[in-house]
Amino acid sequence: MKAVQVVGYGEKLRMTELPAPEVTAPHDVIVKIGGAGVCRTDIHILEGQWAQKSGVTLPYTIGHENAGWVHAVGSAVTNVTEGDKVIVHPLITCGLCSACRSGDDVHCRQSLFPGIDTAGGYAEYLKTSARSVVRIDDSLEPADVAALADAGLTAYHAAAKAARTLRPGHRCVVIGAGGLGHIGIQVLRALTAAELVIVDRNAEAVKLATAIGADHGIVADGGHVAEVLELTGGNGAECVIDFVGEGGATTDGARMLRRAGEYHVVGYGENLDIPTIDIISSEVSFVGNLVGSYTDLCELMTLAAQEKVRLHTAKYALEDFQDALDDLDAGRIRGRAILTP
Amino acid sequence: MKAVQVVGYGEKLRMTELPAPEVTAPHDVIVKIGGAGVCRTDIHILEGQWAQKSGVTLPYTIGHENAGWVHAVGSAVTNVTEGDKVIVHPLITCGLCSACRSGDDVHCRQSLFPGIDTAGGYAEYLKTSARSVVRIDDSLEPADVAALADAGLTAYHAAAKAARTLRPGHRCVVIGAGGLGHIGIQVLRALTAAELVIVDRNAEAVKLATAIGADHGIVADGGHVAEVLELTGGNGAECVIDFVGEGGATTDGARMLRRAGEYHVVGYGENLDIPTIDIISSEVSFVGNLVGSYTDLCELMTLAAQEKVRLHTAKYALEDFQDALDDLDAGRIRGRAILTP
Amino acid sequence: MKAVQVVGYGEKLRMTELPAPEVTAPHDVIVKIGGAGVCRTDIHILEGQWAQKSGVTLPYTIGHENAGWVHAVGSAVTNVTEGDKVIVHPLITCGLCSACRSGDDVHCRQSLFPGIDTAGGYAEYLKTSARSVVRIDDSLEPADVAALADAGLTAYHAAAKAARTLRPGHRCVVIGAGGLGHIGIQVLRALTAAELVIVDRNAEAVKLATAIGADHGIVADGGHVAEVLELTGGNGAECVIDFVGEGGATTDGARMLRRAGEYHVVGYGENLDIPTIDIISSEVSFVGNLVGSYTDLCELMTLAAQEKVRLHTAKYALEDFQDALDDLDAGRIRGRAILTP
Amino acid sequence: MKAVQVVGYGEKLRMTELPAPEVTAPHDVIVKIGGAGVCRTDIHILEGQWAQKSGVTLPYTIGHENAGWVHAVGSAVTNVTEGDKVIVHPLITCGLCSACRSGDDVHCRQSLFPGIDTAGGYAEYLKTSARSVVRIDDSLEPADVAALADAGLTAYHAAAKAARTLRPGHRCVVIGAGGLGHIGIQVLRALTAAELVIVDRNAEAVKLATAIGADHGIVADGGHVAEVLELTGGNGAECVIDFVGEGGATTDGARMLRRAGEYHVVGYGENLDIPTIDIISSEVSFVGNLVGSYTDLCELMTLAAQEKVRLHTAKYALEDFQDALDDLDAGRIRGRAILTP
Repeated sequence: MKAVQVVGYGEKLRMTELPAPEVTAPHDVIVKIGGAGVCRTDIHILEGQWAQKSGVTLPYTIGHENAGWVHAVGSAVTNVTEGDKVIVHPLITCGLCSACRSGDDVHCRQSLFPGIDTAGGYAEYLKTSARSVVRIDDSLEPADVAALADAGLTAYHAAAKAARTLRPGHRCVVIGAGGLGHIGIQVLRALTAAELVIVDRNAEAVKLATAIGADHGIVADGGHVAEVLELTGGNGAECVIDFVGEGGATTDGARMLRRAGEYHVVGYGENLDIPTIDIISSEVSFVGNLVGSYTDLCELMTLAAQEKVRLHTAKYALEDFQDALDDLDAGRIRGRAILTP
Repeated sequence: MKAVQVVGYGEKLRMTELPAPEVTAPHDVIVKIGGAGVCRTDIHILEGQWAQKSGVTLPYTIGHENAGWVHAVGSAVTNVTEGDKVIVHPLITCGLCSACRSGDDVHCRQSLFPGIDTAGGYAEYLKTSARSVVRIDDSLEPADVAALADAGLTAYHAAAKAARTLRPGHRCVVIGAGGLGHIGIQVLRALTAAELVIVDRNAEAVKLATAIGADHGIVADGGHVAEVLELTGGNGAECVIDFVGEGGATTDGARMLRRAGEYHVVGYGENLDIPTIDIISSEVSFVGNLVGSYTDLCELMTLAAQEKVRLHTAKYALEDFQDALDDLDAGRIRGRAILTP
Repeated sequence: MKAVQVVGYGEKLRMTELPAPEVTAPHDVIVKIGGAGVCRTDIHILEGQWAQKSGVTLPYTIGHENAGWVHAVGSAVTNVTEGDKVIVHPLITCGLCSACRSGDDVHCRQSLFPGIDTAGGYAEYLKTSARSVVRIDDSLEPADVAALADAGLTAYHAAAKAARTLRPGHRCVVIGAGGLGHIGIQVLRALTAAELVIVDRNAEAVKLATAIGADHGIVADGGHVAEVLELTGGNGAECVIDFVGEGGATTDGARMLRRAGEYHVVGYGENLDIPTIDIISSEVSFVGNLVGSYTDLCELMTLAAQEKVRLHTAKYALEDFQDALDDLDAGRIRGRAILTP
Repeated sequence: MKAVQVVGYGEKLRMTELPAPEVTAPHDVIVKIGGAGVCRTDIHILEGQWAQKSGVTLPYTIGHENAGWVHAVGSAVTNVTEGDKVIVHPLITCGLCSACRSGDDVHCRQSLFPGIDTAGGYAEYLKTSARSVVRIDDSLEPADVAALADAGLTAYHAAAKAARTLRPGHRCVVIGAGGLGHIGIQVLRALTAAELVIVDRNAEAVKLATAIGADHGIVADGGHVAEVLELTGGNGAECVIDFVGEGGATTDGARMLRRAGEYHVVGYGENLDIPTIDIISSEVSFVGNLVGSYTDLCELMTLAAQEKVRLHTAKYALEDFQDALDDLDAGRIRGRAILTP
């Protein structure tokens, strides 16, 4: 099969011909790729930023946002059958550790991450596990939802976690109206009646966010903290979800938070650097958010099938992978780029 | 009545004769003081550290950890009557704002804090509100429990909040075996079956903590992070409660935390300074903790009556206030100093 | 002022002239009535069904769903001022008992219930408490929202409680598309992405419910349990909210419930009569629901201001109270009847 | 191997020689039995009460409370290895359905129940799954803990669920001081500071329960509801855990419940038959409880290793199975009977 591989850090990806993966273990599932999301992380991988962390041996096939059709299954697979349309959870988890057993499989103690530390989905076929495939509604196409497998799932996870404590009359500030924030706003709109306030440097993105459900849009031009405080009667918001996490976002964001408020860290880059006296005197919390669980992905696919969450995509043939990466790098893509073999 | 007042920052407290407070509003409660805790905060107040924050006008009567007997009540008071033995919640809250209405009265939008921003309890009588007095069990004496009103209540609040997610088999690290940590350990022992690990620089305090319920004691001598990791199979603890918050405690403490763990900030002084990538990749939370609510104080008094929480106290006559402060400052007090008029 | 009173059980209500209520206690609030809901409970009161339970002395002024404008306030009232537009929580609560202190004021140990056990709102003025008045948005009119004070608040409370555990992909069956069910559907639609299934004997009401947000409508004609099971893949729904509670609703409803599901009892009349072996083998819960708290009413008023919850009303002048009752009794009212002095 | 089988309903169990089970699937685990609990359910099975429900084909090996040592494992088993000391969760679950994926494996949609619907543990070897074995502490012996696998796990599950909302000062009534109640009391004592009130017809059992942690013991002799009400200031208890569920227990128990209280149904036999008006006016909940999850069993084994939960056992050689059943039936066993091959 055709596959696009990392052959060296600092080098370009290369398309090559490889044997298609085969079922070798009882829970194996081979997915015929229908769409593979092209993500900024892929660029970081190529730059070598993940080399040490992942410990992956080159060359290997990249691509961690995948959807398609079940092509073959191992002997112990009971939840999908050949031909099923599926989205692929980004992690392959063990199912036996205490995290997996309590439904918190993201913290599995022996997980694999196809596209990061083992073969991913810039290819015709992907090997994953029964524990990682979610059947999707007939109305959904793999190439349309693939990018929800990781970026979208992370946004869903944070937004759904935040929504649990948001009540009517509460305010939720969303920092960052890019890919994740875009999904986050739609998820919050579906799960809560709280007032949603989007904050972003890009006026266009703010406008788009209000079109899809945000109640207030604020352009981050220096006066944004004051604007949020004004909107909230000087008290700040019950919740801030920070999809940026760099360039001063956390300092600004923390100032937007109400007493007893909850700050969700999703984006990353800078340090969270807050005086402990401010944390205790206002009794706020800072909550980390990683990618969502398998159950989160099922729920997100439900919202997608209900058309409550939609994603704009730009599709590229698998062999045009370099164009997709170049367009992403140059900021020429609205929504997400998807490779379709 | 006799009262001990702040007459100037950088000056010593002075005892004076004042008119006793009287009922002037329907929810007023006058408490005859049975015990007033002497707290390190009192020393900070004298140094002027709270001058700007509290905005209090000098002179005023200090003392924010109070217990005694109800002396007089306003017309609308229905929960206590003259002669009742009570401990006094440190805040006077409005009962009408949204925080008060949802049981979260610590975040009341118009609270007073006797001893900090209005007349406190280094005196024979204190004016507080019906919303602030908790009747205590016959078996308890005001002078014995007074110090639970603020320091103890803060420890209870954090420990009880942490206990909600602690399950058998989980590990909870308590940083700091001083006054708050001492109460915290006893509360955790009463509310959870989790393994308790105490960490403190003082070997004597660690020993005491294990005697009252900690399962493991670790002296913080440089190898303490490694020791916690070893105790937890390299994974870290599900929960850390940090009663120190300075001198590098937060950096060390964060390294002791397991994936998806919860870090409770109670002590303060330094900045919490953590890379956002560490927060999201391990999906940990940092949770601020202020003093407990009225309901928390009721619960703590239940534990005190059940002898599940005990406090060592050193009692001083009110007129010996200076000795108490001097002994506290010099580290000569085991447990808490209490003034008894 | 004019007031409509119960003068004898089995007799008609009578309009009379009474002195307007006056502020006599610090937390008193006098509300100039803008609208008073006419409720089926009022008919039950007249029939004497509540005589023993309420212990009220006749004659007294009826009416427990009230909204209007603040006319006068006691000395300790800080949350509203004269002229404020308010809806009135049906209970006057003490603010001091453990239920009130934990935000669960509906279980106040010494509450009053104007219109049931003390003077209500079929009048020009009503005396209530600062703890019972919720300011409403400028866009809302008292006569339009009055009926949300009790019936609507009960529906909100149950729906919001149920929504806490409803996730995307879950199904929630609502039994009863009458007044409460109508509000319940709108609340669920605002707070959750779960699929909503309405079940009612009245095909017209089912149709209306699907028009305002239900995903599926089922006419209860004998095949309704089977239809719900079919809709849910034979498994039943994660949640059932029963606004009927009589005529076999609970037996049918329990059969619609999935393993580990939650059954919310709101309507009443018959006994819940279920084999304990069925309760434990499917591990279901049956959850009682009373009227909502003050905080619930604030949240409901937020949804009303956001036009997420609307109510159809038929208005009558106060002196036409008998027409309103007659029309209600005869089933001639769509939505709720409101008296407007 | 030797195995004790059901050969006909209404007939006695018969010991026979069978081939030992072998690994045939990747997640299979063969356990060498160290102890198999003899349970009243086994007597009910013999009487044919489970014949239709289980659909099991005779003859088959009985015994659903098992512990021992891992004898052999399938190719995909990573959580245990040969020789590990383990207790066996009573269900074999799929790991792939939505219940399993969210940590609620008890509601697995395709589980097996060895000893009930497939070969159980009255034998030398048992076949189970990697998902069902919990490693136990070195200090524990299989024969000592086997009976915690089902009866104990059910008690743990209910008690731990109840403990989540029990605060200091709350009262929890435990109805039934037999096998489950005995474990329940110990679990509650470990997990909560609430006051525990045991109610049982047997004065001896009540006495034993207070010896192991109950704060109050009440003999159910007709005045027990009144006694609970008196103990609780006329208000009733925040929680009732009913391990009996027959003979009027639910009617009595419901009367012991406070407003907003929670009634845990564990024992079964009679119908829960409560007027819906009582459910809504006091806003109580009735919560079903089945056996605990895998995670619950891990937690219970932690408490056992900490000696917070102990069980009295009477041991019998496997071939003396009939004596064990006879002694159980005749009420001659204190604690639980265990077969040890």
